[in-house]
Amino acid sequence: MDGKIQSLRARIDGLNLQLLELLSERARLAQAIGELQSAMGLSHYDPVREQEMLEALTAANPGPFTDATVKSLFKQIFQASMQLEEAEEKRHYLTSRSAHRADTVVEVGNVAIGGRHAPVLVAGPCAIESAEQVEAVAARVASRGVTLFRGGAFKPRTDPYSFQGLGEEGLRLAREACDRHGLAFVSEIMDAKELPLFEEHVDMLQIGARNMQNFTLLKAVGRSRKPVLLKRGLAATVEEWVMAAEYLLNEGNPNVVLCERGIRTFERYTRNTLDVSAVALAKLETHLPVLVDVTHSGGRRDLLVPLTKAGLAIGADGIMIEVHPNPAVALSDQKQQVDFETFDRYLEDTGYHTKLSEKRHEVYGF
Amino acid sequence: MDGKIQSLRARIDGLNLQLLELLSERARLAQAIGELQSAMGLSHYDPVREQEMLEALTAANPGPFTDATVKSLFKQIFQASMQLEEAEEKRHYLTSRSAHRADTVVEVGNVAIGGRHAPVLVAGPCAIESAEQVEAVAARVASRGVTLFRGGAFKPRTDPYSFQGLGEEGLRLAREACDRHGLAFVSEIMDAKELPLFEEHVDMLQIGARNMQNFTLLKAVGRSRKPVLLKRGLAATVEEWVMAAEYLLNEGNPNVVLCERGIRTFERYTRNTLDVSAVALAKLETHLPVLVDVTHSGGRRDLLVPLTKAGLAIGADGIMIEVHPNPAVALSDQKQQVDFETFDRYLEDTGYHTKLSEKRHEVYGF
Amino acid sequence: MDGKIQSLRARIDGLNLQLLELLSERARLAQAIGELQSAMGLSHYDPVREQEMLEALTAANPGPFTDATVKSLFKQIFQASMQLEEAEEKRHYLTSRSAHRADTVVEVGNVAIGGRHAPVLVAGPCAIESAEQVEAVAARVASRGVTLFRGGAFKPRTDPYSFQGLGEEGLRLAREACDRHGLAFVSEIMDAKELPLFEEHVDMLQIGARNMQNFTLLKAVGRSRKPVLLKRGLAATVEEWVMAAEYLLNEGNPNVVLCERGIRTFERYTRNTLDVSAVALAKLETHLPVLVDVTHSGGRRDLLVPLTKAGLAIGADGIMIEVHPNPAVALSDQKQQVDFETFDRYLEDTGYHTKLSEKRHEVYGF
Amino acid sequence: MDGKIQSLRARIDGLNLQLLELLSERARLAQAIGELQSAMGLSHYDPVREQEMLEALTAANPGPFTDATVKSLFKQIFQASMQLEEAEEKRHYLTSRSAHRADTVVEVGNVAIGGRHAPVLVAGPCAIESAEQVEAVAARVASRGVTLFRGGAFKPRTDPYSFQGLGEEGLRLAREACDRHGLAFVSEIMDAKELPLFEEHVDMLQIGARNMQNFTLLKAVGRSRKPVLLKRGLAATVEEWVMAAEYLLNEGNPNVVLCERGIRTFERYTRNTLDVSAVALAKLETHLPVLVDVTHSGGRRDLLVPLTKAGLAIGADGIMIEVHPNPAVALSDQKQQVDFETFDRYLEDTGYHTKLSEKRHEVYGF
Repeated sequence: MDGKIQSLRARIDGLNLQLLELLSERARLAQAIGELQSAMGLSHYDPVREQEMLEALTAANPGPFTDATVKSLFKQIFQASMQLEEAEEKRHYLTSRSAHRADTVVEVGNVAIGGRHAPVLVAGPCAIESAEQVEAVAARVASRGVTLFRGGAFKPRTDPYSFQGLGEEGLRLAREACDRHGLAFVSEIMDAKELPLFEEHVDMLQIGARNMQNFTLLKAVGRSRKPVLLKRGLAATVEEWVMAAEYLLNEGNPNVVLCERGIRTFERYTRNTLDVSAVALAKLETHLPVLVDVTHSGGRRDLLVPLTKAGLAIGADGIMIEVHPNPAVALSDQKQQVDFETFDRYLEDTGYHTKLSEKRHEVYGF
Repeated sequence: MDGKIQSLRARIDGLNLQLLELLSERARLAQAIGELQSAMGLSHYDPVREQEMLEALTAANPGPFTDATVKSLFKQIFQASMQLEEAEEKRHYLTSRSAHRADTVVEVGNVAIGGRHAPVLVAGPCAIESAEQVEAVAARVASRGVTLFRGGAFKPRTDPYSFQGLGEEGLRLAREACDRHGLAFVSEIMDAKELPLFEEHVDMLQIGARNMQNFTLLKAVGRSRKPVLLKRGLAATVEEWVMAAEYLLNEGNPNVVLCERGIRTFERYTRNTLDVSAVALAKLETHLPVLVDVTHSGGRRDLLVPLTKAGLAIGADGIMIEVHPNPAVALSDQKQQVDFETFDRYLEDTGYHTKLSEKRHEVYGF
Repeated sequence: MDGKIQSLRARIDGLNLQLLELLSERARLAQAIGELQSAMGLSHYDPVREQEMLEALTAANPGPFTDATVKSLFKQIFQASMQLEEAEEKRHYLTSRSAHRADTVVEVGNVAIGGRHAPVLVAGPCAIESAEQVEAVAARVASRGVTLFRGGAFKPRTDPYSFQGLGEEGLRLAREACDRHGLAFVSEIMDAKELPLFEEHVDMLQIGARNMQNFTLLKAVGRSRKPVLLKRGLAATVEEWVMAAEYLLNEGNPNVVLCERGIRTFERYTRNTLDVSAVALAKLETHLPVLVDVTHSGGRRDLLVPLTKAGLAIGADGIMIEVHPNPAVALSDQKQQVDFETFDRYLEDTGYHTKLSEKRHEVYGF
Repeated sequence: MDGKIQSLRARIDGLNLQLLELLSERARLAQAIGELQSAMGLSHYDPVREQEMLEALTAANPGPFTDATVKSLFKQIFQASMQLEEAEEKRHYLTSRSAHRADTVVEVGNVAIGGRHAPVLVAGPCAIESAEQVEAVAARVASRGVTLFRGGAFKPRTDPYSFQGLGEEGLRLAREACDRHGLAFVSEIMDAKELPLFEEHVDMLQIGARNMQNFTLLKAVGRSRKPVLLKRGLAATVEEWVMAAEYLLNEGNPNVVLCERGIRTFERYTRNTLDVSAVALAKLETHLPVLVDVTHSGGRRDLLVPLTKAGLAIGADGIMIEVHPNPAVALSDQKQQVDFETFDRYLEDTGYHTKLSEKRHEVYGF
């Protein structure tokens, strides 16, 4: 009986090769059609044609496969051909590692993020609250070797009656403080119409988690050449995050830095949950630099050091952290900003001081 | 020994009443301060003052409570006073049932949504694709008693290379078809700067799930007087959804209809998961009408009828559904739009025909 | 140029039919092998053979498909054949509607659950606490037409220091009360070794959410003939829930009732979130009755009525609810059990009194 | 007007101190009652008494607080007293850092896990499949410095028709292979009644993710003295995970090692999502060693190295990984086990070889 199985298997081996031959020929024809379609400016995907083919196949189906199985198998074959055409046209996603193997390095002012550059530290208050506050933080973090200053002037707040930021005045105050202390300045933009204002005052545009799929904003910021810090949405998959970056690159802005900031989970001990695999996946799937916002990821001061260690170990190109002269009286994020002494201890405990001045080994072997 | 317990308990009862007396007196003083602060235009929340009080209390702490417990107890007392002041000022949320017990009825064209009005049915294609397509659907759904037409002209798409809608041309085509068939028209707005265009062409502005916390858009739409359909975000809590509506009301637009459209869960059999409790909670906590989008909630045609039944049973003021002449060749949402025959069967199976002409009993006893 | 496309498409049409022919022949050979393997008691899945075939194919790959695409396409072909063999052998899942189209009716004592039978109401306290308490609830719910009594004697508690139930004594007390009032009795079993005890005292075995994938318990209970109430796990997909039921049926116990009890979501206003689509999917995919536990689904008394309406509207075969003489002093679930007066109001508001004595129309057209 | 505020605030300061005095006296009385109750063997929590006190308070409520606020404030006060009594009795959780500040070191065979010991590496196949397979893996991993061998003999499988493991035979084969190569052996136990069998053959009992809240199993394993590896549930909070460990310690088994293995999220690129904060929180809140299972956390071979780096950086006491002679033909987990060559590369890329022989610095400063 084993012999019978052997002989049936030999016949299957023959059929496999015949199938491969026909599939390959079919693929070559599909490529030829695709070239003609491109020349005529037509889309390659034609669902009506697909439906007609599937109907012809099920009409001719001799069994034993059910019609549903026949449809499903041929859908796979159609898709394989379609992918081939897309590859041919090099319609690769601009964010993709397969389109661009080398690490992208984004320059913000005279700070370089990504590649083998030392991991950056982006520090500053959650919100810009006053001239005194912004000056105090800028002076302090600059004196500790920080090169990128963060601070919100337009704040996205769940509750309309919460403090919404100082607006234009906040941008101006922070710009002046950054200039005094040689810091590059990153701040969140919430509306495309404020782009001229931001282009005047900031060195890097931040797109917040809640706006990750605000496609209007993505397109506008994509038409700017300012570097962009793109935060991941609170419940976004890595694919959705990368597609949001694709919007930016597709509009012409190549200076995109991704930023993981924790996702929603069922955990009640933390505000969000840092997703280190997302950092790894973003490094594997794209060529863009990736930062980790350790303040929002955990929402707890006692996690800042361990989350920083994990983020850097998995290959993040930098860390973002909120620093405030007196967190207890801050107008937002009271529980998670650190004061100056805690920030010094943080730098020491994470070994950041050493890291800020050292080139990195590559983490992913590209 | 039981007697000893009784006697200790009696002493505790006495202390309870003394505590109540002091707490009430404290609350009256806090109210008086709050009134003075309001008169001076000052914020009621003063974290520096709070910190000073806590320091004074822990300095005086005789035990046996730890300082942490003392702080925690007094934080509760401070918060209770603060809430009292807020209640005094009638700074109730505008969306709240406690501010406005009667059901809000929103009028869109000559369609009334909410209260005891019969549940509405909002039907139309995912995207407006051509003059022929929009005319065919409008004619069909109008002939079946539908009064509200949906159709996207600006489409939020995860992938930048997907079909993004016909834009202004799409709005115009749908407006004409709706006029021909006496339908009110609802369409998604993605950018505040397109508001004049939408005000000219649509009867109701839709804010999509991905824009639920696009606060710039919320504020702009809140300054319009057009009715708004506010979808719940993919992973938003009910509180965040209601706060997004609060942005609209706070800017002056009272014509807000909420729309549950399924949340992200781990389920792989469906695209999203309809959250009926969110409908119930929105009806309990707010006075706004609530619709259920059964197309996106399940993402499966075979769930449209059961989800509609559940949505109406829990008190939704209407249902939203996608209808397309030929879903297999649609430019988006191929798997979940229904064709004309299926739509007829849907109307019959849900008993919607009867419901569309009947007043409702109240579901929640307000 | 359009003519060229037409002619290339005609050649593709021919290739499609040739592919179909070869695929069908291949499937027939695979079936023949499958029969031989069954006769010899061999498994049909042979990963070594699969790997060899894939290697032969990639070795012969003439392009333009990449080796990865060739492997992926042939994996699909292998799987289709495998599924065919499985279908041939009628190794359909026992829970599946395709194996058993008619609704299963489960009889518990003289109560029938499922099919066209009126929806049942399962009521009783979270935990059995004393003879007085269990007698009071049994008397009351029986007087209101309830036929199934619930009450926990072995309680799964997150915290080891919480009340863990009266154990065997609790089962005995509830059995006596149920006998006095003509009620069938359902109680949660946590350990296979307690099966003899449960078989003596209860009419229906409940498997709790935390034990949904306790496969040892599932197998033991599957070897019993007592009806089983299988709760869905807190974060289980519908597929995992149905597979847990498959364990029960596979061991020989056909008397399985599924019970949706809410899933974990990000919502903070409720303890869990009722997933009505899961009820619909369970009815579509399986032939088993499905109940909804409205107490745990929401964890809020003010949601019991709306969730019941939604559950029944979507086709649930019954509702489970917790009733306690004095919820404020209950040893568990203080916030969500209802007292006797609230239970009466619940029956009236849901119209359950009428429903308990009426046959149902079919919700799903099987 | 500012002067008026100052004077009102001074009166509030006085009231604060009076309140503190009364609260402290009340706490001392509650402690005295607690001691009497302990002496009489009574529970400290008496919900009936609590309700009576709340009723007396709301009856006497002079305003301006609502009754609901009064109740809520006094509930806080009652709870603070209760916590005090519990602290007095040293009814601290056994797992808690506050009960036991020093790191627990668990000894398995002659391997020490936790504290300043070098991080361990637990390696072996998902399932024990044959004498040849288990010998091959044991020989290989032992030759690479691994000291702990993992391998499943009883496999929890979602689908009842999947391979369920070799059972007792599997345990025996692995025991022999471990003895030949000087390895300690850890394997998953699914049923309390198999404890004698496991105690004979394994060095460490694993409790799987699906059984994390199988309280019957936890209690049985807690009565053993064998070291336990307790995996976190797929959607469990850190608190629930720690409470599961508390069951083990409460029954008398102090040799507990926690194991994070990824949680369910919406991500589709990975099977689960490694939650590094859970590792940090487990180290902060408990004194138990914590491992990271990098195979299940990601479900992808290309994430094994980065997840290992992140896990060790955040302070994990070891890593668990699946190794198989030929993963493509494995009976389970084909996609995520690594072959011997990949395992060698993994050791090199993670620098594990160096780490396996080095003492660690403390990560958390206890």
